Parts: sequence; structure tokens; C-alpha cells
Amino acid sequence: MDIHIRKAEKSDMQAVLDLIIELAVYEKEPDAVQITVSDLEKAGFGANPLFTCFVAEVDAEVVGMALVYFRFSTWVGQTVHLEDLVVQERMRGKGVGEALYTKVMEYADEQGVKRVQWVVLDWNKGAIKFYERSGATILNNWWQVEMNEASLHNYLKRNK
Amino acid sequence: MDIHIRKAEKSDMQAVLDLIIELAVYEKEPDAVQITVSDLEKAGFGANPLFTCFVAEVDAEVVGMALVYFRFSTWVGQTVHLEDLVVQERMRGKGVGEALYTKVMEYADEQGVKRVQWVVLDWNKGAIKFYERSGATILNNWWQVEMNEASLHNYLKRNK
Repeated sequence: MDIHIRKAEKSDMQAVLDLIIELAVYEKEPDAVQITVSDLEKAGFGANPLFTCFVAEVDAEVVGMALVYFRFSTWVGQTVHLEDLVVQERMRGKGVGEALYTKVMEYADEQGVKRVQWVVLDWNKGAIKFYERSGATILNNWWQVEMNEASLHNYLKRNK
Repeated sequence: MDIHIRKAEKSDMQAVLDLIIELAVYEKEPDAVQITVSDLEKAGFGANPLFTCFVAEVDAEVVGMALVYFRFSTWVGQTVHLEDLVVQERMRGKGVGEALYTKVMEYADEQGVKRVQWVVLDWNKGAIKFYERSGATILNNWWQVEMNEASLHNYLKRNK
């Protein structure tokens, strides 16, 4: 099977959104995706792109993607954050995910960052094993915190 | 006590680095801070700043800071990430942290993002309680994963 990894173009954003939704369903959050194709096109392909996306093609069809952007660590400076890495369910176990993962690591190395970071769900044991085998460290004592839009407005109403 | 919150300037970066180091010590990672004042000056005050920093002053002295930057969620679009919020130990419990936290929420609201996000150490119960009371959600089933520079180079040696 020939896997071709390339930078995503604007015209890939529908396929990318389909993969984003597929991942959200896998992560048991089917209703979480509020973003649209137009949002992705604007955010990724303007004068100041908010992300870089790579796609995996097999037989000229997009079957996987990885989406990254820069973050800033006060310990080590600029880092690459891997937001999503998704492969179509029917194409899993064929090396597509690993090819995308390697591409992300190559990109991070080219950018000269001292860290690549991402998050994983605690029950996703297959992914955790893969990450550990690749040399990454799982930090299960750092918890995510999120303030959503409604809570943000409530907080500001009470505290402004 | 009069607490003045303002955007950090380049000349605040030494005080900001001191606070970054104080936080790293508190987080039991005293040797983790590789960044320098010059790195912070370059990253935060060039043509494309990598972060926005707010400082808290009491009696014209910087006693706390909050450092944020944008991230990109494939579910809700652009978000604000709060990387660090630190108050000098001797000044804790006087409302400085809350004033900085409110400033970050105001900033996020002005920027029109749908989420503010950050991480917390699982043993930092006081912080966790404060975040929950403010309306934020703690997601302890999402784990951080990090690939550091040495592991990245090792991975690429084996997989390129």
C-alpha cells in the first residue's frame, strides 16, 4: 500500500472536517464539533495561519490527517502541539498513523523546537503504548482545565 | 492593598522569569526552566509575539504574572491557553491571583474565543477548588504527552 503524506491544502478541509468528526465520535463526544469547513479554510489558509495540517493519501484519497500548531512553554520556549491525529477506521493498522506521526516529528525537528506535546484519553491504551514506545512521556498528574464560553460569561458577570 | 494589573513590557521580563522559576520550584521541577530573559524578550516583543503577558503590581513592584497565547481547537476554533499564573509566595492570599485570573478571562472574552484552557497538577487542591468555583471544568481523563528534544532525535534516527 502506498501512503503519501503531504501538507494539506484549502481544498482538503472537507475531508479534514470529516476526520475531525470521526475522531470526536471515537472520543465519545459526537456533538463537540462546532467548527465548519469555512472556519478551517479561514483559520488555516489566511495571512497568519493558526495551524499546519498534514494529510495522508492512499489511492489519491485522504484517509488520515494530523493538525499541529505552535505553543509557548515558559520552561523550554516554542513547542509544537499535536492537536489531532486521525486515520479513517477502515484504514487503521496499516501504518498510516505512524507515517503521519513521523511527519509531525520531522516537522517539529525542522522547526527546532525542544518539545512536541499532545493529550490522550486515559482509556486509549493502544495509543498510550504507541506513544511510550516512540519515546514520549505520559504525564497523568497534569489535568486539563477548561472554561467554556457560557462559564466565561457567567464568571465575568460575577467578577467584572 | 492596591493591585494594578497591566500588560507586561519588555523591561518586565526579568521579573517574569523570576516568577516562572518560582512556579517551577513550587511545581517540584526546579531545573526545568531553560528559558532566558533574552528568549522571553525576543518571543514576546517581536513582530509576531508568541505570547501575551499580564503583570500584577503592588507598590510599583511586579508581584505576579499571567502568560497566555492562542491555541486552535478542531472542535471550537481559536482558544486562549493560560500557560502560567504565578504570584510571589509572600503575596499569596491577597487577591492578586484572582485579579490576574479575571484579567485573563476578560482578555479571552475580548478576543471572542469559545474556550480558555490550562493545566493543573493533581495535588494542587487549592487551585483545583478555585477553578471549579469559578465555573471551569477539570478533565482528569485527558493526559498530557510530551516528546522532548532528545527523544525526538532518537525517534527520527530510528524512523526516518
